[in-house]
This record gives sequence, structure tokens and C-alpha cells, in this order.
Amino acid sequence: MDTAMMLVARRALRPVLADLDRGERALALLAAGHRDTPMPGRTLTQHAVPTTFGLKAAGWRSLVLDARDRVTAVRGSLPAQLGGAAGTLAAFQAYGAGDPTALPGAYGAGDPTALPGAYARELGLAEPLLPWHTLRTPVADLAGCLAFTAGALGKLAADVLTLSRTEIAEAAEGSGGGSSAMPHKANPVRSTLIAAAARRAPQLAATLYGSLVAEDERPAGAWHAEWEPLRDLLRLVGGAARDAAELTEGLRVYPEVMREHLGRTHGLIVSERLSAELAPVLGRARAKELLTEVARRAYTEGRDLGELLAETQDLKDVDLSLLLDPARCTGSAGALTDRALERR
Amino acid sequence: MDTAMMLVARRALRPVLADLDRGERALALLAAGHRDTPMPGRTLTQHAVPTTFGLKAAGWRSLVLDARDRVTAVRGSLPAQLGGAAGTLAAFQAYGAGDPTALPGAYGAGDPTALPGAYARELGLAEPLLPWHTLRTPVADLAGCLAFTAGALGKLAADVLTLSRTEIAEAAEGSGGGSSAMPHKANPVRSTLIAAAARRAPQLAATLYGSLVAEDERPAGAWHAEWEPLRDLLRLVGGAARDAAELTEGLRVYPEVMREHLGRTHGLIVSERLSAELAPVLGRARAKELLTEVARRAYTEGRDLGELLAETQDLKDVDLSLLLDPARCTGSAGALTDRALERR
Amino acid sequence: MDTAMMLVARRALRPVLADLDRGERALALLAAGHRDTPMPGRTLTQHAVPTTFGLKAAGWRSLVLDARDRVTAVRGSLPAQLGGAAGTLAAFQAYGAGDPTALPGAYGAGDPTALPGAYARELGLAEPLLPWHTLRTPVADLAGCLAFTAGALGKLAADVLTLSRTEIAEAAEGSGGGSSAMPHKANPVRSTLIAAAARRAPQLAATLYGSLVAEDERPAGAWHAEWEPLRDLLRLVGGAARDAAELTEGLRVYPEVMREHLGRTHGLIVSERLSAELAPVLGRARAKELLTEVARRAYTEGRDLGELLAETQDLKDVDLSLLLDPARCTGSAGALTDRALERR
Amino acid sequence: MDTAMMLVARRALRPVLADLDRGERALALLAAGHRDTPMPGRTLTQHAVPTTFGLKAAGWRSLVLDARDRVTAVRGSLPAQLGGAAGTLAAFQAYGAGDPTALPGAYGAGDPTALPGAYARELGLAEPLLPWHTLRTPVADLAGCLAFTAGALGKLAADVLTLSRTEIAEAAEGSGGGSSAMPHKANPVRSTLIAAAARRAPQLAATLYGSLVAEDERPAGAWHAEWEPLRDLLRLVGGAARDAAELTEGLRVYPEVMREHLGRTHGLIVSERLSAELAPVLGRARAKELLTEVARRAYTEGRDLGELLAETQDLKDVDLSLLLDPARCTGSAGALTDRALERR
Repeated sequence: MDTAMMLVARRALRPVLADLDRGERALALLAAGHRDTPMPGRTLTQHAVPTTFGLKAAGWRSLVLDARDRVTAVRGSLPAQLGGAAGTLAAFQAYGAGDPTALPGAYGAGDPTALPGAYARELGLAEPLLPWHTLRTPVADLAGCLAFTAGALGKLAADVLTLSRTEIAEAAEGSGGGSSAMPHKANPVRSTLIAAAARRAPQLAATLYGSLVAEDERPAGAWHAEWEPLRDLLRLVGGAARDAAELTEGLRVYPEVMREHLGRTHGLIVSERLSAELAPVLGRARAKELLTEVARRAYTEGRDLGELLAETQDLKDVDLSLLLDPARCTGSAGALTDRALERR
Repeated sequence: MDTAMMLVARRALRPVLADLDRGERALALLAAGHRDTPMPGRTLTQHAVPTTFGLKAAGWRSLVLDARDRVTAVRGSLPAQLGGAAGTLAAFQAYGAGDPTALPGAYGAGDPTALPGAYARELGLAEPLLPWHTLRTPVADLAGCLAFTAGALGKLAADVLTLSRTEIAEAAEGSGGGSSAMPHKANPVRSTLIAAAARRAPQLAATLYGSLVAEDERPAGAWHAEWEPLRDLLRLVGGAARDAAELTEGLRVYPEVMREHLGRTHGLIVSERLSAELAPVLGRARAKELLTEVARRAYTEGRDLGELLAETQDLKDVDLSLLLDPARCTGSAGALTDRALERR
Repeated sequence: MDTAMMLVARRALRPVLADLDRGERALALLAAGHRDTPMPGRTLTQHAVPTTFGLKAAGWRSLVLDARDRVTAVRGSLPAQLGGAAGTLAAFQAYGAGDPTALPGAYGAGDPTALPGAYARELGLAEPLLPWHTLRTPVADLAGCLAFTAGALGKLAADVLTLSRTEIAEAAEGSGGGSSAMPHKANPVRSTLIAAAARRAPQLAATLYGSLVAEDERPAGAWHAEWEPLRDLLRLVGGAARDAAELTEGLRVYPEVMREHLGRTHGLIVSERLSAELAPVLGRARAKELLTEVARRAYTEGRDLGELLAETQDLKDVDLSLLLDPARCTGSAGALTDRALERR
Repeated sequence: MDTAMMLVARRALRPVLADLDRGERALALLAAGHRDTPMPGRTLTQHAVPTTFGLKAAGWRSLVLDARDRVTAVRGSLPAQLGGAAGTLAAFQAYGAGDPTALPGAYGAGDPTALPGAYARELGLAEPLLPWHTLRTPVADLAGCLAFTAGALGKLAADVLTLSRTEIAEAAEGSGGGSSAMPHKANPVRSTLIAAAARRAPQLAATLYGSLVAEDERPAGAWHAEWEPLRDLLRLVGGAARDAAELTEGLRVYPEVMREHLGRTHGLIVSERLSAELAPVLGRARAKELLTEVARRAYTEGRDLGELLAETQDLKDVDLSLLLDPARCTGSAGALTDRALERR
């Protein structure tokens, strides 16, 4: 059973890795292509400061690479299992030469402790240090890398779901998701399925981590509780990785909508930067007071920050035009994207 | 907040590692000292075949080493966090030389993307590739290694709890656990606390894995849901590692009770081995038939397997005495223990 | 310990119920006040068909009432615990009259089995049928009603978070959430805290459900694993209920923004209804074909559904104006809201 | 989908209730038949004070009845689902008479809000107060009662697993669990499967509780995350209830082994009772001192508590024989069992 689980996991993780690679490549293209595409950075659902779509895609990619690294490491360490009823290899004793307790005529050659290694090599699995009937590190490691992968892809899906909202529409899944009764709908079906997987994976992993607590030489229940959750995790992550590959390859991005949204806060999306820049010019206290006042007026009067600041006596000789352009307030987003793309 | 979490984790994991080391050393002594102490191997609560206490302790130790390796790796990778509101480093732009959008007079020298690295070095944390406001790999990695450690120690605790049962009494915690009203009780208090931690850790880790799904540049809820579970996990694992160190250092082992228990199944605990050895002598079918028959009689007549086999015509010229000794049916337990102890 | 847990739970649930009542009243006002406020109904993040804010608020209220009912039932059933070391009441035997095994001179009056009831009455708790040392129904029931309440309020919070998004802005938390560096931000802090609680509660409840598996007359670990998760659940739900009361009492709703959003899909938000109505007029196949065609053109040409249909030969004698008004396509939302408000 | 889920749940819970009834009846017989069968009461794995097997079985039965009550209540409340895309019943408007927006010729009679009730009656499900697309009380209620049932049966299984241990052997599953290679093994297979189910159910329920947080009128992920966990929970609990019915009907109990184990602590299992009884005779301080002293000597000298007390000067005129009989130290176990059996 244990060896079979490992063989199944090894096989199931191959397409997962291939799909993570597809996703990584698609995201690298998106990140590079949108290196300088400004968009609203959002915190706690509200516009905060500008960012770029390139940096967002680079972040998604970095999670995909983290997942790939973790899955690759675990996949390479999956061990064969051989140990007999209680992990002592006693059942294989008869095959061992020079065993003083063996009956005359018992065949055998060599050391039973060499068997697990030979068996592992035959199957393309790792050789275990010890029979691992109740040393469930391999299963826990699978749980960890699979829960991580589901969550990493879940972050991507959560963002695509938000960006796809009818009112936001800064991005859309490339195809599918149609409804005959509601022809205007283009449901983000891949993100939805990934999101569902990400909701389930942590609890499935929790059951597997819980099965580390395996009493005796084979536990009554903890072992049996591993089989279906591990299978479910492999299936969920397999599906999510496939969906994420298709999603990222087909993702449509709308820079002009992002650009338009940067203006939704009457220019206040640049206020953090302004505050940092104006402090040395006006003094910290005066800068803060001024910005709070113009922010209030921007909303109540429906006017733009730039307009209101231009009317301010203290700033009449200062050229604020560059500072007020959200596209120029994306900080080091470009440089960070470049750096992130160097990771392979 | 993120940097503080990493500093707290880094500090909290230092005594965890020290206590895992203490546990590992104590278990190495137990494994070596009991390399050849036979005891019943139990599967699904029933005696299966003989094993040794040394192999059991070596298994516990191997889990402790797995935990140590995972905690060490994660502890060494904990990153500082610096990125400003949305992870673009825009707030630090004013400190950057050659920024074309900076106001005249804005001070600064050097590239803002160099700041996170400098900050990390100052704090003794790792430099992040990207600001990780919503790239929660460090938190997920902590969740994974902490859930693993709790489970690994939970396996040890589960075994000690079983071996400590009044009817089994093959081992006992060294001290503590007394009750004034019931002076015969010596409660396995450390195992109990470890077991409680191991019941809670997987679900706490699940919440942290779930928080990977963090929308936007800061999520509304997923981030806030990390703080207490991470703190609780660190505390639980800290306590469990301490308890495990004390538990293993003080564990009392009773080889004579183990020896006595090997006789509880009328000698049938060696039947797997016997079956393998008698098959070439008697033929597989006859061997199986014979063993099933003597097993039945051993229980109904309350007699010993050896006695019953000695009466068997086919075996009257065969010396079974060595095969019937459970202490000689521990397979490769000794060799496996030796090998496991080579791991550092 | 058990009795103390029940007393703590009983006390902690009092403000929870009071806050759920506050929330329920505030939501009843919102539902009634916005009975006929149309807004986009959204499925899988996309506009689907019109609904009303009244129906949405009535739905939130129905979850709050479900929570109130479940918490009330559980709170009224919390039992005292009295049973001695193993739940046999043996320690209280000495107080029992007519005990044939009592030593001469042992005082006592009455039946020990009457003690738990008397004790429960004294404390205002329920009388247990049996000592429940390892019959943890009361703890599991608390877990269930608390996880339910956190989730019910989490649905409300999830919706408020969505409706508060900068681009959606159909609703906003009444106050708080300001940021000095980013004066345009009004973070939905109460929804955020509720969302965080709802992310944690299910896993805490899972630990408590897991502790039902309590071996013997007191388990080694399962009992100890209950204390902190139960306390955490009570605190989280207490905070979430308070936040929800404040949130619903202060929620600002923007019907004009909702109205504007109903137009975001070029009128296609009424297509489901149109499809049902046009089928008998044009035949099902022709109706479907026509709608698919005009939906495509609405998006590519940026024109309105009504305009395009008015140009259709088959429909030139049909007055579609009422059908095309999203505010008239809210189905039975009003009647359902009325019905839901009858529930007390 | 929602209605189908409820129909599936309704059908799947029928055999669950039938099997819980079978288990309840079998446990009632065991409790009554062993009302006065003394056995060691165990806390934190150690003998504490005597109890009876009848009280233990009555406790199991009370959990089964708690499960039955919760499942019955939830099963009777499962609602049909009818509401159209966003729960407004708008798609059914065309069938409604007197709809002022309906096209001439649209057929229909009666009020669409009457449809869900009619549909529910047709299907034998409950009528929902509101369409519950994102008011997932029915799913959460199923999660709660199923996690409870798995845990309640898990307690029974945990106890049977302990009592079945080779060294304890106070009870055994009636049949099955044989191993051809190890003919002495009688694995407690039903308890094992129940234990595995009880390990998985809490986390599956956690996912369902988490899906209460369902944004909008249909969520992108939360809904889809319900389907498999609910199915798995129904299957797991269905299997566990069947296994528990068979287990309890076939359980073999060994009173003589229980009796023998009561002597395992040199008589100290009665020390709590002794301490309570001797305090008024000797004074609390002297009684405690005496018992601590004889407890120590009982273990070091391997002698019996009664023998040692008989040598004590202060007690030479006191007849301790009744107090020293563990079978007479079961407190109110019998009366509690009787009372518990009155519950139907």
C-alpha cells in the first residue's frame, strides 16, 4: 500500500510539475509584457497606492516557482516501503545468508537490509533509511507541498476573480464560462475551480499531518485515514495546476481599464508618495495637515487632487505634475519585476 | 508586522531546535542501549511479530531529525519584510538618488531595491526576492515545519502513552504526574501535553495554509487570520519540544516486561517467521494448514506453540528451538537501528 | 475544569446573543428600507440578473437568526459536570446515606446521583444525564454553533467587503478604517476582522469535534486540546458578533451606485427574463438565437440591448420597455423579503 | 445541484439512522447486562478508580442517541432549492399571474413564491424560507451533525481499540480481522475503520463550515468546495454507523479479565474512596500520610494494600474488607446506568 501510494504520487506529480512550468512561462511573459502597466494597488479592498500588473504577475510567478521547488524536492524524495509486518524485515530473513536461526535448507543470499534499496531502485523511488510504517514523513511532506501549491495557485485565482468582476474588468479568463440564458456572462471558471481546490486542500493536509500520530508499528485508523485525503489532494492539485496553466496562458489584461481606475480616487492614490515628498518641503506637520484637508475636499467637492494643490499658496512654485501621475508613482515595481524574472 | 512575526518565529525556534537536539541525543542513547531488547511489535493494537525497543527509539529519533532538518531549513529562510503599502517600495523612493520624479531637494542615495536586503542583514533575517505582502510562502513554510514537528513528537507521545498503560507498563515517564487522592497514579503528563499539541497543530497549520489565498496587495482577513495561529503553533511546538526532551531523557524502560509480553500469544508471535521457514520444509500448503491448526489449539487448549509443534509428526526431526524464540525473530531490527544511528 | 468551561461559555455567549439581536434589528431595517432597491445580482463574480439590496439584507438577517437560534439552544443546554475521577460519583459515596460499604460514622444524606442536579441548579447550568468526562457532546455543540455563527457573519462580511471595493462602492462601513498616509482610504475594518474570524473558526471547531474521540474515562490529550480552541472560538465569535452589530447599524448603502451598475452590461442583465418572455412570442429557438446575436453586438458595438432589439423586425410591434428595466426584473425579491421579515 | 445534494443527503441518512438505532439497541443490552460488571476506570492511560462496563456502554449509547437526535433533526429540515440564477425567482415570473411586466400572452397562474413550497412537497423536502444560494445553513447543519456522529462513534471505537489490545483483552470485536500469516491476530477492523472516519470528518466539516462564507448571490469556489466533502462525509458516516452497529452487536466482553485487572495496582485502585472514608476516622492529614506510605510500600514490596493496612495500628479495629473490594467501589455507576437507559 505504502509503495503504491508513493508510485501514484510520483506519477501524479509529473503533470503537476509540467503544468506549473507552463504557468510559470506564461506568467513570465505577462510580467515582462506588463512591466510598466500601472494599476491600482489595493489593500483591504481599497485603492492604496499604484502598482503595476507586471509586479503582480511576477508575484504570482514567484509563488508558482516556490510551489515547483517544493513539489520537485518532495517528489524526488518519495521512498519505497519494505519492512514486513512490523518494519523489521523479519519476513525476509529466510532469504538472508548466514542467518544462524534459519532452518537448514532455507535459501537466501545476502543481507535483508539491502532489499529495500534494491526494491526502491527497481521502482525508481528513493531508498528509505528505515521502514516507515509509522514514520510518516513522506506523507506529511506530500501534504505540505500539495497544500502549498493549492494555496499558491489560490492566490492567483483570488486575484483573477477580483480583477474579473463586472465592475473591475481589468482582466478576464480567455475563454469558456458562457451561459446560454445569460449571454453577457463570462464566468471565470478556471479561477473558480482553483479557488475551490484551495479551500479544500488545507483541511485535507491537516488530516495527513494528523496521521503522523501513528501509534505502535501500524496504527488502527491513522494509516487508513491517509488514503483518500492523499488521493484527493493529488487530484485537486492536479486539476488546479492544469487550470492555472490554461488560465495564465489565456489571460486577457486590459491596461486601459487599469489606467482609468487609477483616477477613481480623485488623484489621492498618490497621496502616500506626495506626503513623503512634501514633508521635506513643507515640514512634516504642515504636509500632513494640507493633504488631509485636500483629501476631504477632493471627495466633497468632487475635484481632483492636482487642481486643489495647485491652488495652495505654499506650493505655487513647485511643479507637482510628475508626482501626481500615478503611472510615475509605482516605486520600484519595474526593478522588482526585473529582479524576480531572473529567478529560474 | 511581518518582520516582527519573522523575528518572533526566529527567536521562538531557537529553543525548539535546542530541545529537538536534546531529544535526539536521548533517543540515540535509548536506541543504542536497547538495540537488542526484544518487545512485541504491534499492528492495529494486536501483537504482530517481535521487534526491538531499539528500533522503536531509532524510529522516534529519525522523526526528531526530520523535524530538526525541516525547522532548521525554514528558520534559515525567514525573510525581512519591506515594501511599503503595496510592496512597490514607492514610499522609499524619496531616498533614492536619480529618481526623475523626485522633488528638488529630496535627499537620498542609492537604489530603494537595496533597502530590503540592508534591512534584512541588520535584523539577521533573509533577504526576500520580492516584498511578500501577499506571497505568504514564509508563513506557509512555518506552518508546514511546525505541524510536522508537532506530529513527529506526537508519534513519540502516542507510543509512550500506550507503553505506559497500567496493563502494558513497558515504559514510564520518569517523574511527575502524581495524584494525591490516587497515589498509585503516575500520569504520563509530558506525553499528554505533546499529544494535545499534536491534535491542535494540523488545524492551526490549515488556517495558515488557507491564508496563502490573499487577494490584492493586502487581503482583508487572510493576513489578520495568521497572527494568532502562528503564535499558537510556535507556543505549542515550543512546549512539545521541551516536553519531548524531558520525556526522552527521563524515560524508564522495562525490558523484562517486554520479554514477558512476548509470551502472551502462546508463542504465536513468531508465526510469520515460522510460516516462511516451514514452507520450504513442508510445502507451502501443508505449512499453512499446520500453523492454522496449532494456532487454534494454542488458544483453545491454552498451550504453547512450541509444545504443539513438537508433537507434530512431520517436524519431529527438526530443531525449532531457535525459531521459536521471539528474541531471535526480530529480523534486521539491530542492523536497521545501527544504520539509523549513523544519521547525524 | 469542565464546569468552569461551561460557566465561561454561558457567560461569553450572553453578549454574543445581544449583539446578534442588535445585528438582526439593524438588518431588518436595512431589508425593509431597501425592499425595492434594485442592484446587480452577482454569480461567480459576474452580473447575472437583478436582485434587491433588501433581499440581500434579508438573507444576511436570516443567517443571523439561524445563528441566534443555534447559540440559544446550545447555551440553554450547557451542563454542569460532577462525577469524580472516573464519572462514577464514587468520591461522593461517603456523603450518601444507606451505603452498605460506608464506614461507621461516615456522614451523608441522600443519593449521590442527586448531587449533579443540585450542583447544576446552584450554578444555573443544565443537569447532565451522565457525567460527561468523555461524552463531549456539550463541547461539540459549542463548536458547531460557534463555527456556524462565525461563518454566518463571515458571509455578511464577505459581501460588505465586495460592495465596499473602490470600484463597486455600493456600500461602506460607517466609520473608522482611516489611514493617515493614505487619506482616501476607508478600510472596512469590521468586515476584515469578521472575515479573519470566519477563516479561523472552522479549524478550531474541527479540533473540538476531533476531541470527541476521547478514550477511557479521561483521555490523555483530547481533553487538554479543548481548552484553548474553545476559548479562542468564544473570543472570535464574541468579537465578530460585536463587529457585525456595529457594521450593520452603521452601514451606508448607495442605491444610486447600484442603479448605475445595473447598466454596466448594456442591458443584458435582464437577458434571462427576456429569454423566458420572448420564447412564447418568437419560439424558443429563434428567441435564443436573437438574444445571443444582440448580446454579441451589444459588447462589440457598445450599444444597448434595448436599442438593438428595437431594430429587430420580429419585435417591432412589441413594447419591451417594461421588460428592459432592470428594476422591474427583480422577480419576487420584494415578496421574499417581506416573508423573511416575518420571521422573528 | 442544491436540491440534488439535499435529496442525496436525505437518502444517505436513512441507513445512518437505522444503523444508529441498531447500535443503540445493542448498547442498551450491553449496558443492562453489564450493569454490575466492575472494571478499571482509566484516566490519562492509568488505572484511576473502579467503574463498570455497564456505565461505559451506557455512555457510548448516550453518544449514539445524541447523534441520532442531531441527525434526525437535520434530516427533517433539509430544504429544496428553487430560486433561479440569483434567488429572486425571476425566471419563474413568466408563470405568475397578474405580473404587470409580463408580455401579453405569457402564460402563468399564481404566485412564484408558492413554487418553492410546492416543489419541496413534491420531493419530500422542507420548504425553505428563502432561496439559500448563499445562505448555506442546511450544508453547515449537515456538516455539524455528521462530524458529531463520526466523533461520537469514534469515542466508542477508541475505547474498543484500547480494550482489545493484546495486553488488555477485556473486549474483542466479534469476528473478522484475521491474518493468514499471523493466525493469532484478530484485528479490530470495524473500530479501525470508524477511527479512520473520525480522524477525517472534522476537517471535512471544517471545509463545509468555511463555505458559509459565500460571497454575492453565488460564490466562485465556496459552493464548488462543498460537493465532494459533503459526499465524503455522508459516505464516511454511513460506513462508520454500519461498522458501529456490527461492532456493538458482536462485541465480546470478558468480565473475568476486567476483574483481574482491578488487582493490578495492589489494591490501590480503591485509594480515592479509602481516602474519603478514612479522613473522618483518622483525620484528613493522618489519612493522607498513611495512604501515601502504604502506596509506596505496596509497589516496592509488591504487597497488597489490604495486607499493609491490616498491619496499621490505628486501623486494627476497623473492618476494611468491604472498602477494599473494587467491585464495591463503583460508586453510583449502577444507578447512573439505570438512569441513562431510561432515555429513549
